[in-house]
Amino acid sequence: MVSAPDGRVVVSTDLLIEGRHFRRDWSSGYDVGRKAAAQNLADVAAMGAVPTCLVIGLGMPADLPVDWLDALTDGFRDECAEVGASVAGGDVTGCDLVVLGVTALGDLGGSAPVTRSGARPGQVVAVAGRLGHAAAGLALLEAGRYGQAPVEEGSALGEAVAAHRRPRPPYRCGPEAARLGAGAMLDVSDGLLQDLGHVAKASGVRIELDPAAFTVGEPVAAAAKELGADPLDWVLTGGDDHALAATFPPDVALPPSWQVVGRVVAGEGVYVRGRSAVQGGWDHFR
Amino acid sequence: MVSAPDGRVVVSTDLLIEGRHFRRDWSSGYDVGRKAAAQNLADVAAMGAVPTCLVIGLGMPADLPVDWLDALTDGFRDECAEVGASVAGGDVTGCDLVVLGVTALGDLGGSAPVTRSGARPGQVVAVAGRLGHAAAGLALLEAGRYGQAPVEEGSALGEAVAAHRRPRPPYRCGPEAARLGAGAMLDVSDGLLQDLGHVAKASGVRIELDPAAFTVGEPVAAAAKELGADPLDWVLTGGDDHALAATFPPDVALPPSWQVVGRVVAGEGVYVRGRSAVQGGWDHFR
Repeated sequence: MVSAPDGRVVVSTDLLIEGRHFRRDWSSGYDVGRKAAAQNLADVAAMGAVPTCLVIGLGMPADLPVDWLDALTDGFRDECAEVGASVAGGDVTGCDLVVLGVTALGDLGGSAPVTRSGARPGQVVAVAGRLGHAAAGLALLEAGRYGQAPVEEGSALGEAVAAHRRPRPPYRCGPEAARLGAGAMLDVSDGLLQDLGHVAKASGVRIELDPAAFTVGEPVAAAAKELGADPLDWVLTGGDDHALAATFPPDVALPPSWQVVGRVVAGEGVYVRGRSAVQGGWDHFR
Repeated sequence: MVSAPDGRVVVSTDLLIEGRHFRRDWSSGYDVGRKAAAQNLADVAAMGAVPTCLVIGLGMPADLPVDWLDALTDGFRDECAEVGASVAGGDVTGCDLVVLGVTALGDLGGSAPVTRSGARPGQVVAVAGRLGHAAAGLALLEAGRYGQAPVEEGSALGEAVAAHRRPRPPYRCGPEAARLGAGAMLDVSDGLLQDLGHVAKASGVRIELDPAAFTVGEPVAAAAKELGADPLDWVLTGGDDHALAATFPPDVALPPSWQVVGRVVAGEGVYVRGRSAVQGGWDHFR
């Protein structure tokens, strides 16, 4: 049983499949637990709510090492602790590979939920949290630059890989944005362009982004140099960092956690430098 | 966003894996949707709550027929409609086989939640709903008595197979039992002996069952005759009917939907005819 003092509850659910959403040779059980928790807690925060609990359905092979399972549980617990939430229950069943069905609940604290459909022409578009870090880390792993080896904590490349393994969503910025009067909000899970496309469509507006307004993090820049890639590709289309993207009335004084990167105008679609952005990001069926 | 007028919310989650919890050659998409919804809605009802919504994580192969998916969605919707609940959201991802992560929320309507730990010596044990029907139907399917063929609605054997495909939990009996002062309650998902074992353990009591007190349904009796099986085995150890089992103070006048089948005494374990019941029911790792 979970407390719902607001009298309403927001819910988010995700299914994570081994080999598609994580690899056991690239992420520890602890990393997978933190990441699986984070992506649902971030989705709740993106509605402007404070996450209260997770419930977890776990499918696992009979020979899954107990250590891995213990670490997974620890990861769920520690990520929940970041926001004062807890694991409220679950279900375990056999499966040939590890499958996680994760559901997060959250409390609105009296605010209206922020949805994807509240963007209006004249508003600014802002982001909180990291963009492109997880994608840079994944690219390093895919290029064979990292395997089971522990991350070099100090290095920029190590930070990128760590970002792939454990996103750090800016949870508190969700309820903060709601208090600041955010029109629309979501967490960036599939890539900023693709996710803002959902906002543009649901709101019936056009979103214009200024690529010069984005900060390219040092891990993203370092990975781009290492692999000969364009760092802005990862910033604009990389998923899994669970940054928050929101629209705000133009006269709002945004705290430093939010960075203005564009504006909402009449029309449709997402535009970068005046050109329609090609759909990027993760294709769930590729 | 889901209404939680009570200020508390109960949650249940289950993971259903193709090949383990259902087979696409034995159950239609519609059947799978109804069954996946039913088992979570029943779990919520078993806490004494009224189910309010489901959220669904769906993993599916890219070549899953659209018709099957549409039927699945219809099944979820129709089973929810049985209790006035709705599908509030979900997540779709690619997977080599069909995986369903289903979470149900429910409202307590001012009552305290009924748990597994409230059984006390002196109480009676009662069941509501069907027992052994789904297990009899599964046994018929496993024996090759039924395949893709439509169920013969009129026949007793057809009813058993239908019970495997679509459980019919006695949803309303959950909140009813809470109002009647039920001590402990759960829905029978793994078999009555195994599930009452959880109640006995959580409550620190012994549960004694009187096998003569059980009604053997006609579909169960017919399947037992067809396959040369003991129908009581299915009644006591068959899962998936999602009957409700509860303990009540001995002086409560139970409505006809509840049938007294045993009593709670001091001690531990589950006993049938004075002998400790061997752990039965579904082994998730067999």
